[in-house]
Amino acid sequence: MIYFDNAATTKPLDSAVKAAVDAMSAEGFGNPSSLHGLGLSASQKVSAARKVIAGSIGASPEEIYFTSGATEADNTAVIGAAMSNGKRRRQIVTTSVEHPAVAEPIRRLEAQGFEVVRVSPREGGYFADDIVNAVSKETCLVSCMAVNNETGSVLPIEEAFRRIKKQYPDTLTHCDAVQCYMKLPVKVKSLNADMISLSGHKVHAPKGIGALYIRKGVHIASLISGGGQERGFRSGTESVPLIAAFGAAVGELCGSLDERFAYVSELSALLRSRVSALGIAVNSPADGSPYVNSIAVPGLRSEVLLHFLEQKEIYVSSGSACSKGKKSSVLSEFGVPDKLADFTIRVSFCAENTADEIEALIAALKEAQDTLQKVR
Amino acid sequence: MIYFDNAATTKPLDSAVKAAVDAMSAEGFGNPSSLHGLGLSASQKVSAARKVIAGSIGASPEEIYFTSGATEADNTAVIGAAMSNGKRRRQIVTTSVEHPAVAEPIRRLEAQGFEVVRVSPREGGYFADDIVNAVSKETCLVSCMAVNNETGSVLPIEEAFRRIKKQYPDTLTHCDAVQCYMKLPVKVKSLNADMISLSGHKVHAPKGIGALYIRKGVHIASLISGGGQERGFRSGTESVPLIAAFGAAVGELCGSLDERFAYVSELSALLRSRVSALGIAVNSPADGSPYVNSIAVPGLRSEVLLHFLEQKEIYVSSGSACSKGKKSSVLSEFGVPDKLADFTIRVSFCAENTADEIEALIAALKEAQDTLQKVR
Repeated sequence: MIYFDNAATTKPLDSAVKAAVDAMSAEGFGNPSSLHGLGLSASQKVSAARKVIAGSIGASPEEIYFTSGATEADNTAVIGAAMSNGKRRRQIVTTSVEHPAVAEPIRRLEAQGFEVVRVSPREGGYFADDIVNAVSKETCLVSCMAVNNETGSVLPIEEAFRRIKKQYPDTLTHCDAVQCYMKLPVKVKSLNADMISLSGHKVHAPKGIGALYIRKGVHIASLISGGGQERGFRSGTESVPLIAAFGAAVGELCGSLDERFAYVSELSALLRSRVSALGIAVNSPADGSPYVNSIAVPGLRSEVLLHFLEQKEIYVSSGSACSKGKKSSVLSEFGVPDKLADFTIRVSFCAENTADEIEALIAALKEAQDTLQKVR
Repeated sequence: MIYFDNAATTKPLDSAVKAAVDAMSAEGFGNPSSLHGLGLSASQKVSAARKVIAGSIGASPEEIYFTSGATEADNTAVIGAAMSNGKRRRQIVTTSVEHPAVAEPIRRLEAQGFEVVRVSPREGGYFADDIVNAVSKETCLVSCMAVNNETGSVLPIEEAFRRIKKQYPDTLTHCDAVQCYMKLPVKVKSLNADMISLSGHKVHAPKGIGALYIRKGVHIASLISGGGQERGFRSGTESVPLIAAFGAAVGELCGSLDERFAYVSELSALLRSRVSALGIAVNSPADGSPYVNSIAVPGLRSEVLLHFLEQKEIYVSSGSACSKGKKSSVLSEFGVPDKLADFTIRVSFCAENTADEIEALIAALKEAQDTLQKVR
């Protein structure tokens, strides 16, 4: 099996699975809120993982809140910021290429009366100026992703957020860093984000866990209330197995960011040069994340190609996996012609992929070009 | 180790752990939204679990929405119902003994202008009349738990909901069935609830998974939006490992409800008769759930006793595990004198507990009475 759909989800590391299993064992299954030793032991697992996640982005453990995933983290950040900071400031600035986990709650706020400015890219990319210029003293929240999930485009949020926070210190900044985390550096100091959303299952932890970083001193309304877990901000018995697994995965990966980046950059360069030679278009920008490679095989519809590749046990995506069947407007926003968008597949890497796997993909693509019926 | 804190959390069954591990394996880790075979396989795991959970309460699979736990399910039900059904009807009826996962979101709605009626028990228990009489045509939502988590008291919601739905068909009924599910029968047909919250980790699945039943035809606003998973109602990549584990646990347990109930009833009767002989008060009502046994050892503070028992590897709770350190008003609502409340521990069973374990607890309680310093 050749798995090139790592932007959709990743295979949990053995260390992550082990941590999850430990937290379901006779010694590990306690409720962190229980006052006895079994509760304490579970609580310690949560604290240890929190420390690892915090360390991985240069934050303090008290700034990390575990959630059921990045979608909950995004919803919490967007809605929480609007509820807390949106009483007088009724404007939200975002981009036109956000993941639905950000775009949807913003659309709901728009329906409730918030004014939403969606900044589009120019010439295939984003300019910090455009984001900064969209912000005014009426802006309660700026939410921009770090790396786009469909193309790998890197957004200039460091510069944009720095300038926004300088000019409008009361405007809250949020970054969905899901496709950036553990791939490119995500550091709270340079990012100037008040809130950052992280996903576990995109970084080799299991599905069902994520985290929201909230900068110390920033107070937003919480989404889920109840027993007061996560220091009163996110109620519900902590998913100790998944939290422990998230900590284990990040603990294993966070030391090798540069090394993995260099390796995956080579894979990406190899893929892009080999497909170009076949007349396949590369939608992804040259300066994007090497982990996400959007390519279009003229004449071969995405779904047809996806299933052809699948027969050879090569797994790619026909777009983002997040909106099953629904056509996304992201490619068109990035200037990919509609005609090419229908032919687009996403080849997304992790450091376990190899050059041999890419050669196998190239051979399969060549065979597809030679044998499959083309459409115009 | 003797674990008598099953109302706080339970040890995952081997079958549940296995299902979770399978869903994290090289063959099982796909994203259910991915269009290729790995995605399909993950999606099938989710469907299979949904069918099991639905079957366990006599619902259709389309009426089951997976959540990150019962707290999210409760928040979704309460807030969603108020948002959808509360435009003209501004009253919420609930009880004074709800879990914080219901009580807190209701408190927030109260702060936003909803009128909240909290029905108290009489003579230690609830009467359907009292709940029904609190409802009016202004009521958008009635939320009542099925079994109280601190005392095991069973609330007369079947009768109350039946009469309410007959008289006020537009009032939505919600039941937090967490301490009832897989212990006493929870059947949508007899319960007359429009919404039911279920927890995984109280029924030997891992922490981090739950479900909300929403009766077909009932439409409430969703809490978390994004990629449109769970038929558009609850976005976020599904936690396939925990969903599969939840399905496995319920699949294993749902056939043995009566048998386990009879067995745990015997354990409970044994415990209650043995502690009574020691002069220990039983706070729980005789007709309550045998799974939850609230007892008070006069003169021995809960925390002191809890840690004394812990040294003998006997784990109990000093109250509900859900509000660490915070004193709950539930016991006092049920007529337990404040003096006894300070001395209360909760002994909560699962079917893996034994009579021998109860004898060990009795011996330890006797020793505690003989050796620990008493307070007045």
